[in-house]
Amino acid sequence: VIPGSWPEVLEVAQRVYPGFARPDTEISCVILDERVVPRDAHPSDGFVTPEILGKLEEAERDGMDAVVIDCMADPGMEAGRKLVSIPVIGPGEVAFHLAAILGYKFSVVSLEEDTLAMEKLVDHYGLIERLSSVQTMDCPLGQIVRDRRLALDPLVEASLRAVKVDGAHVIVPGCTATAGLAAQVQALLAQLGCPVPVIEPLWAAVRLAESLVDMSVSHSKRTYPSPQRP
Amino acid sequence: VIPGSWPEVLEVAQRVYPGFARPDTEISCVILDERVVPRDAHPSDGFVTPEILGKLEEAERDGMDAVVIDCMADPGMEAGRKLVSIPVIGPGEVAFHLAAILGYKFSVVSLEEDTLAMEKLVDHYGLIERLSSVQTMDCPLGQIVRDRRLALDPLVEASLRAVKVDGAHVIVPGCTATAGLAAQVQALLAQLGCPVPVIEPLWAAVRLAESLVDMSVSHSKRTYPSPQRP
Amino acid sequence: VIPGSWPEVLEVAQRVYPGFARPDTEISCVILDERVVPRDAHPSDGFVTPEILGKLEEAERDGMDAVVIDCMADPGMEAGRKLVSIPVIGPGEVAFHLAAILGYKFSVVSLEEDTLAMEKLVDHYGLIERLSSVQTMDCPLGQIVRDRRLALDPLVEASLRAVKVDGAHVIVPGCTATAGLAAQVQALLAQLGCPVPVIEPLWAAVRLAESLVDMSVSHSKRTYPSPQRP
Amino acid sequence: VIPGSWPEVLEVAQRVYPGFARPDTEISCVILDERVVPRDAHPSDGFVTPEILGKLEEAERDGMDAVVIDCMADPGMEAGRKLVSIPVIGPGEVAFHLAAILGYKFSVVSLEEDTLAMEKLVDHYGLIERLSSVQTMDCPLGQIVRDRRLALDPLVEASLRAVKVDGAHVIVPGCTATAGLAAQVQALLAQLGCPVPVIEPLWAAVRLAESLVDMSVSHSKRTYPSPQRP
Amino acid sequence: VIPGSWPEVLEVAQRVYPGFARPDTEISCVILDERVVPRDAHPSDGFVTPEILGKLEEAERDGMDAVVIDCMADPGMEAGRKLVSIPVIGPGEVAFHLAAILGYKFSVVSLEEDTLAMEKLVDHYGLIERLSSVQTMDCPLGQIVRDRRLALDPLVEASLRAVKVDGAHVIVPGCTATAGLAAQVQALLAQLGCPVPVIEPLWAAVRLAESLVDMSVSHSKRTYPSPQRP
Amino acid sequence: VIPGSWPEVLEVAQRVYPGFARPDTEISCVILDERVVPRDAHPSDGFVTPEILGKLEEAERDGMDAVVIDCMADPGMEAGRKLVSIPVIGPGEVAFHLAAILGYKFSVVSLEEDTLAMEKLVDHYGLIERLSSVQTMDCPLGQIVRDRRLALDPLVEASLRAVKVDGAHVIVPGCTATAGLAAQVQALLAQLGCPVPVIEPLWAAVRLAESLVDMSVSHSKRTYPSPQRP
Repeated sequence: VIPGSWPEVLEVAQRVYPGFARPDTEISCVILDERVVPRDAHPSDGFVTPEILGKLEEAERDGMDAVVIDCMADPGMEAGRKLVSIPVIGPGEVAFHLAAILGYKFSVVSLEEDTLAMEKLVDHYGLIERLSSVQTMDCPLGQIVRDRRLALDPLVEASLRAVKVDGAHVIVPGCTATAGLAAQVQALLAQLGCPVPVIEPLWAAVRLAESLVDMSVSHSKRTYPSPQRP
Repeated sequence: VIPGSWPEVLEVAQRVYPGFARPDTEISCVILDERVVPRDAHPSDGFVTPEILGKLEEAERDGMDAVVIDCMADPGMEAGRKLVSIPVIGPGEVAFHLAAILGYKFSVVSLEEDTLAMEKLVDHYGLIERLSSVQTMDCPLGQIVRDRRLALDPLVEASLRAVKVDGAHVIVPGCTATAGLAAQVQALLAQLGCPVPVIEPLWAAVRLAESLVDMSVSHSKRTYPSPQRP
Repeated sequence: VIPGSWPEVLEVAQRVYPGFARPDTEISCVILDERVVPRDAHPSDGFVTPEILGKLEEAERDGMDAVVIDCMADPGMEAGRKLVSIPVIGPGEVAFHLAAILGYKFSVVSLEEDTLAMEKLVDHYGLIERLSSVQTMDCPLGQIVRDRRLALDPLVEASLRAVKVDGAHVIVPGCTATAGLAAQVQALLAQLGCPVPVIEPLWAAVRLAESLVDMSVSHSKRTYPSPQRP
Repeated sequence: VIPGSWPEVLEVAQRVYPGFARPDTEISCVILDERVVPRDAHPSDGFVTPEILGKLEEAERDGMDAVVIDCMADPGMEAGRKLVSIPVIGPGEVAFHLAAILGYKFSVVSLEEDTLAMEKLVDHYGLIERLSSVQTMDCPLGQIVRDRRLALDPLVEASLRAVKVDGAHVIVPGCTATAGLAAQVQALLAQLGCPVPVIEPLWAAVRLAESLVDMSVSHSKRTYPSPQRP
Repeated sequence: VIPGSWPEVLEVAQRVYPGFARPDTEISCVILDERVVPRDAHPSDGFVTPEILGKLEEAERDGMDAVVIDCMADPGMEAGRKLVSIPVIGPGEVAFHLAAILGYKFSVVSLEEDTLAMEKLVDHYGLIERLSSVQTMDCPLGQIVRDRRLALDPLVEASLRAVKVDGAHVIVPGCTATAGLAAQVQALLAQLGCPVPVIEPLWAAVRLAESLVDMSVSHSKRTYPSPQRP
Repeated sequence: VIPGSWPEVLEVAQRVYPGFARPDTEISCVILDERVVPRDAHPSDGFVTPEILGKLEEAERDGMDAVVIDCMADPGMEAGRKLVSIPVIGPGEVAFHLAAILGYKFSVVSLEEDTLAMEKLVDHYGLIERLSSVQTMDCPLGQIVRDRRLALDPLVEASLRAVKVDGAHVIVPGCTATAGLAAQVQALLAQLGCPVPVIEPLWAAVRLAESLVDMSVSHSKRTYPSPQRP
């Protein structure tokens, strides 16, 4: 579920995301039906949540095995887990936990307008003591959406600052609009003398979704109870 | 702003809330325009957030000085602070901080379905180490909405458990549907040998709103920046 | 209760503090009777605590409804709450909690000799993770006491450093000797491109005292039991 | 790598663990060469660490893509990551993080002698605030090693206590000697009215190992530097 | 320095405390000159702090090498360290840190009226996560002062509850009026099947004072600056 | 117990360490029997743990009263406390707790390769919030082992950076290879205008060992149970 309504984002997703799945996994990408946001709000600001929730219910009705939300802010993830029983995966939560497994301190490299939201999200998931910094990459979202390769150099530069100045041991790109670039960023950092792991959040999210389905495990309904209020 | 669409809730609010304000303060209560929630979801689940946000923008346009959200889960508060510049006050945040000022440990007495949400909210505000427990009062929301006096005994009983079993030093009622009962609960607890302060969250919220307006202080736009995404 | 014995401090207080109260509130300022401190100690060092405690008991006997201690270090506040039943308010505790409500990170701007004490006090109240920094304003206390307007520029400069270098979202002046300057500091910061809220701690403290009296709520005797030791 | 030298453990591992892997993944199980432990010590006590480290180096030399250590205490994992570059996965670390993703509070169900070690390990990984309890299953290790089905009922009983008494939302079996039972435990708990997810730690560990290899990501050498001391 | 003015306490101290020192250490016990407390306040309530501070300055002037404050609440310790340069040791701080060294969780066994103060003190020193509980011993202070052997059984019973119910690994007696009983409590607990270490706080404090003097190390003047306020 | 096998280290230890003990204490230094480490690993990496554990058991059998491990990483300390009943003291744990007693923030001055290990160890002992920094001294271990006086200037320089840049109030040398230099470092820092306490970790460790023996107190067997696994 892509929390936006731009057709070009859908087109890129359909091209890139199947590469994050196993051959026997079918990936189906959906965008929101219409431009529901009355003004220029962030996906995490709540305007698009109802439509995201609708898409999650639709996915479960359509027999999907799991859903991944295509935004590092994990909008609608916690509310959605109350509405459906299939795994609802947020790439932010997965990537932050994976970063904590791979190293002692990780930095998120995000868009300027998301810096504080990323810090608060890491705190929300209980991992703030493992966060070395949120670094800003110098590249506006509109530009990345048009051509994600334009984000490569800004991502590398911000990652270098994260490692050298802030002491990061692991890098987490903080916007799924850069999906597909992590391996290149990791390779370039290594060439520049900073060989640290760079996580591809959506890849990790898709793989976790597959594993949960195989293991027949989903989120706990004790934490995410189905709504029962009259 | 009352995050629901029941006329009876509006009627009670119009009767009770002016008593929480100073004589020279004008209180205006609004409910949501229609039943926006597709199913029986909680106010904090995100379905009503867009309409709450719309009401906040409307309030600012109409020249209101401040807004109080009438729900202990503070739905839409953080997103709303991004959209408007006037103070947006959540009774949950205010009551938890006030409880931390008045004593070392506080308990929230909530509806059964809100127990975990209250604990996570206290944690979200950074006060979890001051929380003695979230106690459940044995009284369904529907019953309280019809006649809030039916909540009095369950509130007192749950508060006694909070004090005697969980070690609470301060009580915070966890649902604004019980607004107006705190003084009575405090008096009854004192009669029963448990003289602890009982906070009236909406009263505290209204008073803070008045004080912020007088002091010409509002939430920080560094924390709650106005949306700028194209 | 002003934890000092300088007549000029009393004179300023009597002029400034009534402006922080509602029209129907009567403010009565008291200083300590004599110079009880054997040498040049800080109010928080314990020498003046016994006399502060005496003043608190006196206030309750005289029928005062609540007491505010006029020092950001909140000297004698916790011990005083054991001795009396009327609300005892410390501007430090109130201002730090209010700052945590208004933004994600706040800085305290204090006198050089109080820097560490302020940091430890924020920690004592459980809010250290919300503290961006304690900044020092370049202005000795003696000078401020003689003419508080001399503190304006140093306050603004230190606040700018707090916002730009330390990432503060909210400013808390850390010495009540600068009481009355917050609004001007806020306005000047906004003119300089740093529109962040600046809290007036004593104003917030007086307003909370008024609200608690109206709500018939005081500190918990479970946290602050009356002394009973033989 | 199985941190023990019992042939029967190897035999069970060779039968059970391939089921946790994808069809195209080859699983190779190794036990320690000899009984290196001078007395009845726990794998986490350090006696077997040198031989585990040797096995890790051997695995890398032999061209293995990743190593999973077959013990919930993750013995030798952190030291091993310094010695080799291929991913070294501990089922404890993976299972605790996954539990934190799936629910708000998780309990570990462990052998009596491992209770404290499990609590300290969860603390070591920074997740102690998400731990509801460490419950003890009433079944000695020797018995489980002979016939792991004997652990089924004790696991279910301890899990029920964890959910009902301690408030667990997710269950993590705390000993890999019970590997293969999680799905049954989850099903039985659901039948008994406690439908909570039960994690199969080794399954999660094997899947993470596969994903890391696919993504060409390993642990950070900034956290786990190769030894260079003369 | 004994923060009281009872001659019988002085008499006991002079008999017991030399046994906590090395043979070549001279112990000098002082009580406060007069009954300075206006009513029945706790040593930590601030009334006796000025006189304690006076005694610390006197001790330094008289050439003492170090001072130990004879109360588990460490009254006047932090303010005193600002006034003098010789080590000022509080048995509470020393005993809590030693308990954290000797085991994972410790309980304090205190007088009923000191329960909360002990919990807050452990929190103040940053060790709250290592505290299993504060247990109350059923024995009033007046009785212990008259004959400290009357505290033995209550100490043992409360310690047993701490170990068996609260999971304590180490016991810290929470009132120096029981000084001299720790070894017996430890022996009795061992006989009763609870062989846990029981710390003698004043013994540990005296020994630390001796060690600091030998090492020529004292508290940091960066943390405890000498007062300089005009 | 010296976790190495270099004869020159033993020779220095035999000369320096008796000076840390009381006259009536007999110090016996042992090194490891052979070069057990297969490659250039750190003492904390686990290779030498089995031999350290053997030395601890040997010490207890030989009637030693307590053991101090001669390495700031405290290798084998926790496992060793399970195997023996006499106190096993690690200079890292003792020095970090003592630093927290003497001041609000302390820095560790360590070898470059130990920086992260020291930070994680302070975190492991629960004192990370008191750590101002881990500073690196510019001096390789091999050089210090040959002539420890060569470490004096680098220690002083790194300590100055810790105090002036990182805000340290107390200094803890992070490698026991510099044992015996703390007093000189403290004196030089004072001459340079930075009069902060500098802890001699092994001295503090030896003194604590003596005190524990005198008090008949050892580590808790609840935290460090003797191994019982079949």
